[in-house]
Amino acid sequence: MCEANVYLVDENGEKTLLLEAVDRIIPEGDNVFIENIFGERKTVAARILEMALVDHKVLLSKII
Amino acid sequence: MCEANVYLVDENGEKTLLLEAVDRIIPEGDNVFIENIFGERKTVAARILEMALVDHKVLLSKII
Repeated sequence: MCEANVYLVDENGEKTLLLEAVDRIIPEGDNVFIENIFGERKTVAARILEMALVDHKVLLSKII
Repeated sequence: MCEANVYLVDENGEKTLLLEAVDRIIPEGDNVFIENIFGERKTVAARILEMALVDHKVLLSKII
């Protein structure tokens, strides 16, 4: 499977795992909607910082 | 491998394949930088519309 782990990066550059095994990522204005392969969903005030798909890693930057 | 195909969606909803086997995606203001596993790079005036990683599909919306 090719899902990714989504991390939230705070203003100090600290990464926190937000959700594992994420399949869908949809930016919606100042929010990002994510859904994983288990049907868990989260919406966070953030923007997409970087995606490294081969590393299964997506970084979101927190909007303060 | 878990790279994705990146498609550009125009104002009529038409999808065009922009780059295959993309590993890295980085939004940069009104542009999106993409790089595939072969080292090919593109920067397009677009925003991320939706990512469906299990389907290996990333949609970008063209900025007109």
